[in-house]
Order: sequence, then structure tokens, then C-alpha cells
Amino acid sequence: MSAISTVSSAAEQRSQASPFRLFQALNGYQLTDAIRSAIELDIFTVIGAGHNTPSAMARECGVAERGARILCDFLVVQGFLTKSGQEYALSEDSAMFLDRKSPAYMGTCTRFVLNESLRKHFLALSDAVRYGGATDRMAVEAESPVWVDFARSMAPMMMMASQELAKLVIGGERRRLKVLDIAAGHGLFGIAVLRANPNAEVNAVDWKNVLEVARENAEKFGVTDRYVTLPGSIFDVEIGSGYDLVLIPNFLHHFDVATNEKLLRKLHGALQPGGRVAILEFVPNEDRVSPPMPATFALIMLAETPAGDAYTRAELEGMMSNAGFSGHEFHPMPPSPHSVLISRRE
Amino acid sequence: MSAISTVSSAAEQRSQASPFRLFQALNGYQLTDAIRSAIELDIFTVIGAGHNTPSAMARECGVAERGARILCDFLVVQGFLTKSGQEYALSEDSAMFLDRKSPAYMGTCTRFVLNESLRKHFLALSDAVRYGGATDRMAVEAESPVWVDFARSMAPMMMMASQELAKLVIGGERRRLKVLDIAAGHGLFGIAVLRANPNAEVNAVDWKNVLEVARENAEKFGVTDRYVTLPGSIFDVEIGSGYDLVLIPNFLHHFDVATNEKLLRKLHGALQPGGRVAILEFVPNEDRVSPPMPATFALIMLAETPAGDAYTRAELEGMMSNAGFSGHEFHPMPPSPHSVLISRRE
Repeated sequence: MSAISTVSSAAEQRSQASPFRLFQALNGYQLTDAIRSAIELDIFTVIGAGHNTPSAMARECGVAERGARILCDFLVVQGFLTKSGQEYALSEDSAMFLDRKSPAYMGTCTRFVLNESLRKHFLALSDAVRYGGATDRMAVEAESPVWVDFARSMAPMMMMASQELAKLVIGGERRRLKVLDIAAGHGLFGIAVLRANPNAEVNAVDWKNVLEVARENAEKFGVTDRYVTLPGSIFDVEIGSGYDLVLIPNFLHHFDVATNEKLLRKLHGALQPGGRVAILEFVPNEDRVSPPMPATFALIMLAETPAGDAYTRAELEGMMSNAGFSGHEFHPMPPSPHSVLISRRE
Repeated sequence: MSAISTVSSAAEQRSQASPFRLFQALNGYQLTDAIRSAIELDIFTVIGAGHNTPSAMARECGVAERGARILCDFLVVQGFLTKSGQEYALSEDSAMFLDRKSPAYMGTCTRFVLNESLRKHFLALSDAVRYGGATDRMAVEAESPVWVDFARSMAPMMMMASQELAKLVIGGERRRLKVLDIAAGHGLFGIAVLRANPNAEVNAVDWKNVLEVARENAEKFGVTDRYVTLPGSIFDVEIGSGYDLVLIPNFLHHFDVATNEKLLRKLHGALQPGGRVAILEFVPNEDRVSPPMPATFALIMLAETPAGDAYTRAELEGMMSNAGFSGHEFHPMPPSPHSVLISRRE
């Protein structure tokens, strides 16, 4: 042992470098799949209900005892479970977001977050780095089924952000308000505005297949009488004019600056004087490497879109100004990874 | 802002739970692909050589400036690079293991660690949890090309472990020693023994295609005159007898206990009295959730083999005892994730 100890301590003195972090990073996909499997098999919910040993999980989830044991041990190492003897328990995060009985359950979001198209794009990441973006336009194609998955599976995650955006843009206001909701998706952002102001009406633009999901949600919240759907691409569809407010949630990051400015000019023309546009985005700091979620989001755009990005506040305000807007108000919304920029047509 | 602040701080007071860690885990595969791409494109080496801005990397690596910028920002967030202004620098880990000019370069290992078969098995992880193991036998099939990749790409990573194992089993001994190296792969473990003891000879067992790699390495180290290859499966091949030492590096984890005990009995019969068997393995503690690398290794075995596992020290010693061995000596080898168990035929 002494020879080995000497080698080890010499290596340790020389450097704090460790291949462990590299292997942990290379094995990152295993964490993805472990969490996904545990959600699919409802392991978290079953543990939350007290079936907390491998044999109990095997019975409740229809899995092998050995499979449950090895998967759960992995999730303990990763911080999503704790272990005491042969019994597992949910971490605070898992209890909040991964137990189906929790009101904040986010298990549904894996359908979009882990959609096959996105994982394929990441397998081709080197090409995206070479060309500066995805070489297909899958993410922004007409009627892509990806956006139906998005609309159906991401709604729970967007509920709080939509309510916060509605508070920001509506406050206590109750006057008549004509609202355009762009790339409405699940429709929650427009719907939250309708619920905050009973005299608002929303025109929602998105692909026809996606708007069916938005309409279902509008029905659920009882606001269909003030909800109009305009199927098509916002770049082409006839949106009319006289709007008081335009919502652009999670949309500009798919496109380059020139495309966004062209769109923003179109929206500027559709707003009444004094009308506002509200953008919800992942906005990294000027250093582009903080905070973690907005900063890392840029890589998803590199992999999946031809020219999208996570834009900084200065870049977003620049696009707004170039499109004729002013009076920018920037609102981070911690702990949400999103920020809101509200700008005004003079 | 006040309404938002109230919502946020209420949420924070209620709980420290955050969806950030969940999303970071779900996006784990993005970290895998980001590191893999940066290695493929040689970004780390180029930064190490001082080409540390996106435009310099674009020129040196043949990538898009925008691609280099977004990829590098992601790697800063993940701790593999640092950033100051527009300039990037290697973290200590990256300088040691990911710069091709470093003697400890490990970039080649991605070919095995990220082989397509392994990633496919993880996509089917839920099935492995249901059935308690992989439903195919790909990992242990005859002549699988996976093991040629392993032999070629993992050698740099195994160099230090092979030297440490040789020190443990040889010490300063120079007497004639007949050694069997099972599932030799790159051959480094047997070769290290040959280099440590000039009177040792090694019989190396592995698939024929894999042994070609071992033979190349034996040539490189000038030990071919004492290196005999025995192609085939160790479960079937005629290994002869009279061995002083059997090496079993990274092999038992692919199989269940009964299969391992059967193999160990065969090896017991091939050893001289007083002969030793040395196992190198990922050995988790009894709690099976520490240390991280050996503990998480079990999931790879669940995903990729019908019945393999990361065995604890007690389990390994149990198999050894059941096969007739005694005098177990257990040697952890920090900072390596491997441990060595040496047992003796009376």
C-alpha cells in the first residue's frame, strides 16, 4: 500500500485536478435517463406514498426489485432521494416536483424537454458548432408536432410565470384591453391576462394544431368568449391592428436579430399609440455565463435552431429600440429563470 | 414588482425546493454532448495553445464564431472553462485531461464511454428497471466491436491503475511467475506485470479482435516474447494450469454472482497452491450510495448487462470464499475509483 499511497498523495499535492468531474459530465445523459425512467415508472410517487423499499416498489410499480434498488441508489448519489438502511425517501425537490400527488408536479414536462428531436439535435451538436446553428429548420417548421407536445406538457411549469407576467402588465387595471398573444402555445399567458382583467380580449396566434390545446385551456378557465384564435405563422398571418398589449413569451430566442426586428416592427404597427409589448425570455447577464439557466439555454438554441440565441437585456432593448419602441422596463422574476421586458410605442 | 416579490419570497420561505436542479438533471445529456463536441472539435487544445477568443477558435477549429462562443459559455457555466471579457481559459481539470498536449489527456475515452450501444441501452433504461437488466446480451456477446473500442480508447485512463495493480501484486519480486490476464482488453494490466517483473510471462484471454489491440500494446512496451494470447471466452477457453497469478480487471461486474463463482472455481483449479487472484473493480461501500463513482457504476451494469452489478467488498469476498479462496486483502486506490481484492488459493 505504501507505494500506492505515495503515488496518490503526490498526484494530489501536484494538483486538485480529478477525472471524476469529467466522467460525471460525460455520463450526464445517464442522469437524464435515470430521472426520466423514475418519472415514467412513477417511482417518486410510490416512494412518496410510503412504498419505500425495493421490494415494495417492485410490487407497486411492476418493476424488478434489483432494478428499483440500482435506480434508487443512483438517484441517492445524485441528490434526488435519500437512503436509510433499505428505505428510500424523497428529497425536498423530488417531493415538490416529482411526486404526482404534489400540486407543483412537473413530471409531464419531460415529454417536451426530452423530445426526440431535441436529443437528436444534441447528438449533432458538433455540426451546429461548425455551422453556427442547426442545419435543419425542424424547430420552426409549420405545424411541427413538437409544439403540441410543448403546449400540452409545459403548461404546469408556466403557470406561475404566466400569473406573474399578468400581474406585471395588468396590475389592477380593468379597462377594455385588446391583447395579441404570439406563439401562444398552451395559451396560459393570454389566459392569465384574461383572468386578471375581465374586460380584456385576447387574439392568440400559433399553428392550428397547437391552438387546439390553447382553446382547451381557455375552456378550462372559462374565458373562451374573450378568446379568438388566429392560426398560422406570426410572420405571415393577418393580425389586424389597434392592440393595447402584445405578449411575446419564449419566442424571440428562436430567431436572429434581423428576423426579430422585422417582427417587432410589424407588431409596433399593430399597436395603438401608448400600447405595450411584453417579452418573456431567458435573459443571461452581460457576461453570458450567469445565471446558470438563462446562460445554458443558449446552447439549446444553437443545437436546435438555425440562428436563435439567449439574448442579453442590452440586445433585447436594442432590438426594441430599432423597431421603434421606447420606455423599456426590465423585470427579472427570481426564482423563475425568466425575465420580462416591457416596451412602449410612443 | 411588489406583487412578484411577494410571490417569490413566499415561495422561498415555504421551501428551498427549486426546479433548477431537476432541469439541470433532465438536461444532463446536453452536458455530455457539449463536452463530447468540444473534444471532437479540439476546442480545449486550441484554447490551451492561446487561441482563446471565439474568433481565434473559429479560425483554428474550423467552426462558426457564434458556435464557439455559445459552446464555450456553456462550458464556463459547467466549470470546464473560465471566462474573462471575451477570452476563455482552461479549468485545471480541462488543462490536465482535455488538452491533447497534456500527458494525462483522456479525450480518446469518449469513443468507449459514449459508444452508441451504451447510449441506446440508457434510452431503454425503463425496460432494464422493469426486467432487472438489459434484455439483450450485446455487452457480453462474442467479438462485439464495443470491446475493440474499449481496448483502443480506454488505455490512457487505465495506465495508472495498471501500474498500481502491478505494484500491489509484484512488489519487488523477480522470481518466475506464470500469469493469466482475463478479458485483457488493451492488455495494460498484464503488460504492467511483465514490466514490473522481467521473469513473468502472461497468457492473455479475450476475443480475437480485442487481443490484436493487446498485442500492439505488448509490442509497444517490448514484452511480446513473454506475451501469449488465448482467443475466446474465458468461460469456454482452455487456459491450462500452474498459474501463480490471475488478473481479473473490470470483468466480474458484467455477470451475476453464480456465473462469477463458477468462473472463480475454474480459476482456482488453474492456480498453483499459494497462487493468487487479483480483482480490480468498482466497489461501492456497504450503503451502495458511496463513493459516487463506484456507486453510480451499478446503473451502467443494470442498463447494459442482463445481470451485472457493482459488487460490495463483502459480496466480492463472499464469491471468493465460495470458490475456495481465502486470505483476502482489500486495497482501495484513491483517487482512482477502483479497488483491488487479492485472494489466495491455500
